[in-house]
Amino acid sequence: MPHIDLPNLPGIRGPMAFRPETSKPLNELVEVLLRHPSSLTPGERELIATFVSARNNCHYCQSIHGAIAAAHLDGDEDLVLCVKTDPNNAAISPKLKALLVIAGKVQVDGKNVTSEDIAAARSEGATDLEIHDTVLIAAAFCMYNRYVDGLATIQPHDPTLYRERGKMVARNGYVAANLTNVANPPAELVTR
Amino acid sequence: MPHIDLPNLPGIRGPMAFRPETSKPLNELVEVLLRHPSSLTPGERELIATFVSARNNCHYCQSIHGAIAAAHLDGDEDLVLCVKTDPNNAAISPKLKALLVIAGKVQVDGKNVTSEDIAAARSEGATDLEIHDTVLIAAAFCMYNRYVDGLATIQPHDPTLYRERGKMVARNGYVAANLTNVANPPAELVTR
Repeated sequence: MPHIDLPNLPGIRGPMAFRPETSKPLNELVEVLLRHPSSLTPGERELIATFVSARNNCHYCQSIHGAIAAAHLDGDEDLVLCVKTDPNNAAISPKLKALLVIAGKVQVDGKNVTSEDIAAARSEGATDLEIHDTVLIAAAFCMYNRYVDGLATIQPHDPTLYRERGKMVARNGYVAANLTNVANPPAELVTR
Repeated sequence: MPHIDLPNLPGIRGPMAFRPETSKPLNELVEVLLRHPSSLTPGERELIATFVSARNNCHYCQSIHGAIAAAHLDGDEDLVLCVKTDPNNAAISPKLKALLVIAGKVQVDGKNVTSEDIAAARSEGATDLEIHDTVLIAAAFCMYNRYVDGLATIQPHDPTLYRERGKMVARNGYVAANLTNVANPPAELVTR
């Protein structure tokens, strides 16, 4: 049960519906970082978000962003699982592997990122903007994960719920998807 | 030296000037959380931000938010230092002490917050909205701190710089203050 009296919605959607003033910039940030035009694909950026959320052991965030990543990646849930558990052996580009090393350092403490980590990413073709966005995606999910867990939000365990919403968010984006938070959300998304 | 080629501005202002698309929601979030009307004063909310930034050992964030807190609190820098180092003995309300316990748990892992921590805050008069905002302020500074440190931004050590900018931000707010990031920032704020 959530620590405070939140609308009956899973994960971050509960506190977002509770406090629209903060959900607006929270949604805009993730929309820019994960969906706006970028030389990293939406699938790659969702994998970074999923990887960091798994390191933070946030069930809701790793499940929903893993599902969104899979929706962007032809439904390849095995690839998502491999990135979470064994990124070095995942079928992703060497550049993304180097960026995940940086994201993993940021997840613990930004000061852990070394010049060598940056040089390794650059040698695989990473640009300054890609490095910037990787650091900010990792940092942002250290926020979203703590927000979701710190309020003890409802975190369903049925993968079907995440799979269905993952497809919808991959198609429509965060800002549009969260317009449904308050007004008549689909019943299957509000049950545990 | 920053890990990527950033504008020559201290702390978060470098990457914010580098990437205006993400700085917009980042500024809006902190403006709502720390400055919009609330039953927690701006000084109290800046103390939560400073406390979390100190726990994350982020020099820039704890210095600038400590300076903004002091500017809101009649210049009481000793109080800010006491909140960072020995909050239980600081001259703050029992409610704020209880909220700092929650913020300290969120800084490590949101899952560490217990029903007892929430009950303790409620018994000192904390509302659901105050608990929500405390959790999100703590979570958000886990992002800002990692963003600032993860890019190895310039973090000046002269307290005068922070004191002066702290007064300006306390007066004008984050969104207004950061309009100066790109166009002709005052020289004293761009030097180390």
